[in-house]
Amino acid sequence: MTSPHLRQPATVTVGQYLATRLAQLGATRVFGLPGDYNLSLLDQMLTVPEFEWVGSTNELNAAYAADGYARISRGLGALVTTYGVGELSAINGVAGSFAEDVPVIQITGAPATTVAAAGKKVHHTLIDGDYGHFSRAYDEVTVASATLRVENAGPEIDRVLVTALEASKPGYLSIPADVAVAHIGAGTLSTPLRARRSDPDNLADFEAALREALAGSTDLTVLAGPRVHRKGLEHAIRSLADVPGVRVASQPGSRAVIDESHPHSLGMYLGAMTKTPGTREIVDTASPLVLAGVVLSDFLTGFFSHGFDPDRSIDLGFRQARVNGTSFYEVTLADSLAAVERIARDLAFAPTPASDVVAGAGRVAGDARAPLSQDAFWAEIQTWLPRDTIAIAEAGTPFYGALELAMPDGSDLMGQPVWSSIGFTLPAMLGAQIAAPDKRSVLFIGDGSAQLTIQELGTVLKRRLAPIVFLINNDGYTVERAIQSPDAPYQDINVWNWTAVPSTLAPNVPSETVTVRTVAELRGALALASSVTDRLVFVEVVVPKDDEPSLLVELAAGVAAANRTA
Amino acid sequence: MTSPHLRQPATVTVGQYLATRLAQLGATRVFGLPGDYNLSLLDQMLTVPEFEWVGSTNELNAAYAADGYARISRGLGALVTTYGVGELSAINGVAGSFAEDVPVIQITGAPATTVAAAGKKVHHTLIDGDYGHFSRAYDEVTVASATLRVENAGPEIDRVLVTALEASKPGYLSIPADVAVAHIGAGTLSTPLRARRSDPDNLADFEAALREALAGSTDLTVLAGPRVHRKGLEHAIRSLADVPGVRVASQPGSRAVIDESHPHSLGMYLGAMTKTPGTREIVDTASPLVLAGVVLSDFLTGFFSHGFDPDRSIDLGFRQARVNGTSFYEVTLADSLAAVERIARDLAFAPTPASDVVAGAGRVAGDARAPLSQDAFWAEIQTWLPRDTIAIAEAGTPFYGALELAMPDGSDLMGQPVWSSIGFTLPAMLGAQIAAPDKRSVLFIGDGSAQLTIQELGTVLKRRLAPIVFLINNDGYTVERAIQSPDAPYQDINVWNWTAVPSTLAPNVPSETVTVRTVAELRGALALASSVTDRLVFVEVVVPKDDEPSLLVELAAGVAAANRTA
Repeated sequence: MTSPHLRQPATVTVGQYLATRLAQLGATRVFGLPGDYNLSLLDQMLTVPEFEWVGSTNELNAAYAADGYARISRGLGALVTTYGVGELSAINGVAGSFAEDVPVIQITGAPATTVAAAGKKVHHTLIDGDYGHFSRAYDEVTVASATLRVENAGPEIDRVLVTALEASKPGYLSIPADVAVAHIGAGTLSTPLRARRSDPDNLADFEAALREALAGSTDLTVLAGPRVHRKGLEHAIRSLADVPGVRVASQPGSRAVIDESHPHSLGMYLGAMTKTPGTREIVDTASPLVLAGVVLSDFLTGFFSHGFDPDRSIDLGFRQARVNGTSFYEVTLADSLAAVERIARDLAFAPTPASDVVAGAGRVAGDARAPLSQDAFWAEIQTWLPRDTIAIAEAGTPFYGALELAMPDGSDLMGQPVWSSIGFTLPAMLGAQIAAPDKRSVLFIGDGSAQLTIQELGTVLKRRLAPIVFLINNDGYTVERAIQSPDAPYQDINVWNWTAVPSTLAPNVPSETVTVRTVAELRGALALASSVTDRLVFVEVVVPKDDEPSLLVELAAGVAAANRTA
Repeated sequence: MTSPHLRQPATVTVGQYLATRLAQLGATRVFGLPGDYNLSLLDQMLTVPEFEWVGSTNELNAAYAADGYARISRGLGALVTTYGVGELSAINGVAGSFAEDVPVIQITGAPATTVAAAGKKVHHTLIDGDYGHFSRAYDEVTVASATLRVENAGPEIDRVLVTALEASKPGYLSIPADVAVAHIGAGTLSTPLRARRSDPDNLADFEAALREALAGSTDLTVLAGPRVHRKGLEHAIRSLADVPGVRVASQPGSRAVIDESHPHSLGMYLGAMTKTPGTREIVDTASPLVLAGVVLSDFLTGFFSHGFDPDRSIDLGFRQARVNGTSFYEVTLADSLAAVERIARDLAFAPTPASDVVAGAGRVAGDARAPLSQDAFWAEIQTWLPRDTIAIAEAGTPFYGALELAMPDGSDLMGQPVWSSIGFTLPAMLGAQIAAPDKRSVLFIGDGSAQLTIQELGTVLKRRLAPIVFLINNDGYTVERAIQSPDAPYQDINVWNWTAVPSTLAPNVPSETVTVRTVAELRGALALASSVTDRLVFVEVVVPKDDEPSLLVELAAGVAAANRTA
């Protein structure tokens, strides 16, 4: 996190103030589209040297890209849209950031203050004189929001940004065109915004309660969840795992929180769908069990088949920790994890038995000449997957295929197991690749999903980024076919010429494009992807329509059962 | 409007009930995407023979397509999405239907009733136990909404559909998965739903007041607006225009309400931006002035430069008529227009002076070898434009270019002057072409706009529809360049290979694709479009980056001035 512009002029415009604050909190690249009501705002933001505009092809894609950027940079993400038409197009993406704990700021350029106050019937409104419709819609999916006036612009920007950062949830700012260019005091900009630390008294109380709860324990089991990733606390989990007597299982959605080759790693826990029976039993019967940044949603618990009782666990959240049913507020995840480690070391457990979990095992290389199956595809990917990869797996077959991968060191696995909005990952890959230019993003996405947001691949190419895309062509919505009515007409999608997509969306930018139908062809494509690192490599992977990763089959049965609930 | 299934079984499922009602009100083709929570609903709807599914590539596009379908069919439009991710993606399109008076029903397949009642942390929710977030967001942009229970499903479906139909605004239905398959009584289905007629007493009072107000008048000036189009009342305007002493001007957005060759047509009125000074003066000084289905928004009044006083006009709305400041409720536009015509005939005005307005004049054919300009393009289009065309003009340069076209008989001009959401028209063209298969849709869309929603062209092709698309390639957001900061980086868009788009999105479907850069090349393309009527004709029209239709220049100045309002 940098603090640009520590020496400020006496005043700045509201647009400059906002861009400076965003840059201080990591959002130096901002996504979005211009529109009639945000041009002045963008002009002001562009005067801030640290601010870089990433033009998007539509607002939903911009929201997805900002989310991907924030996930990987571990700071704020941001997008700028115009009033009404722009902000409403983005709202699904922002809701996804809420569901998945990602601090994205949606910034709307709005009609001028007096225009709104007069209720004028201007375009991009419902011409009913009510200028509050869209900010109220955003209140449903954000943790803080403000429609700025000149008088409160600075403090309100700061409040929304800090609240979003602390809660790891989205915020919303609506900025009238006249307010965007108004001058306000710049003095506060020299004080960086920071998330508040833990309350020292509450933290001490928590640690005392925890010490009491853990007294007499002979070992400690930790289940680490996605919120560890959001706060960039992988190092704390790793440090905790190094303590003798501690073992760590991971939730889907936080697969790279601990290197899976760590001797204390239990691999992935997914309730009754846990692949390793030993892991399931250890977690379900553990006492004490520490839930570290865990999310207990349907897809992250094998449809609520977890055997442990969350109310009897030690539950560490973003800013709240619970022991023996007592919640301690304003205790940050970083501090509660450190307290657990301190106490675990003090207790001097006996050494942890070596884990017999081998992540990614059980996959057998296929016959090179055979047509590709899902199994064969993921087995080859496992063998090939390089270090320092940001793997991004779309909802549907890719996420459940990728879940069984053992992630190599320095890697990350990004998905959307809670919100599960199809199309998310392609623009999110843009954001991720911009946030971490030194790592390579590797996208796994189905044909049905890619059609929703494909235009953002043009932005990836225009910016000469070099991710790898595996477009899994299985001729329709296989995940929905797995749930119900596989032959219904609504399961079919349009047939595209996938390998023509990159050159169509960026005729002047070189890329590598290949279709693979056999194991041998896939191996050739993987070799190509490894050797060509300066451009997009786009691999169309043709697999059978009804071939589903085994985890997906189990999940789909869970969805179907829940829908039948009367 | 048909009334299928007049002989019903004793019970039907809620999904069947809904599909039958939609079909009765014109929505036989329904747009959308499948998702985990709407599969049972779709399965039920698909059992109704009149129901046809039109799979969309994303939900915003589905909403736009449903809007285009409803505009052209003059009945209900409908889309089905899944909970959360799907419905929120569509909300901008539904808000546009609200702003533009189009009755579209957004139908959400939701988690089962008991799942929601228990506040379970399932995917596609914010996992905060609150299942009301998204329906509350929809309350901001719909005129009626309901989350169905088995006990109220039939009456609530009927209420939402009739309210939407009467108000010509969108409605929202959220249908839990268990409710979708529950059986309810089918008896009511044999009674078609209808918008209520005028209240007879109110109508009589209105007519008496109107007769008093018009007594002594020597002529009558009518300004016809988009709401005439929404209710399919063009015939009533034409009949009124035939009355001696009556003259009719049209708002932008209702250009085809009266044949512009009609001797009593005054052409387009747009406040201070009216092209014909005589028309502006006649409307601004008319007494009496009848506002028939008029919308007084910024873009429809030349930025509020209309010279007449709406409060002193006779204002005829969808279900309300106002004379001398007195509103008469529950008087429909059809009935109020008929009353105006009756009284005008009774008053036996002297014959109307012949109008000297010649729509579409002033355009000069360009040099055949010269590079295309906006002026030359529209002049050629005017010469070529065939009868029975549904012209669809995207916000930005296309809408303001198309506005100056004289529309040939049997034609329609569709745009979005109030909501002005870029990207709208491409999916709306899909809906329009499906709604009116015997007319040919002709789309004018800029490159910046088309990138937002391009994937829906694949659906147009898959269904073997044969519209004509003029993709106006002017290298960026020219409409925003006209307002402010033409060289800012946010005005640039990605460079695409436009002529490769149709074959990429539908490799197995024939289409004609051509790029034109001169008048001669455009003429060749127009001849091709006229002769090839069984497939998509896609014409990339290359025009200079900063060339703007004159109406757009004036509008852009208005936007810039409004944004500067302190």
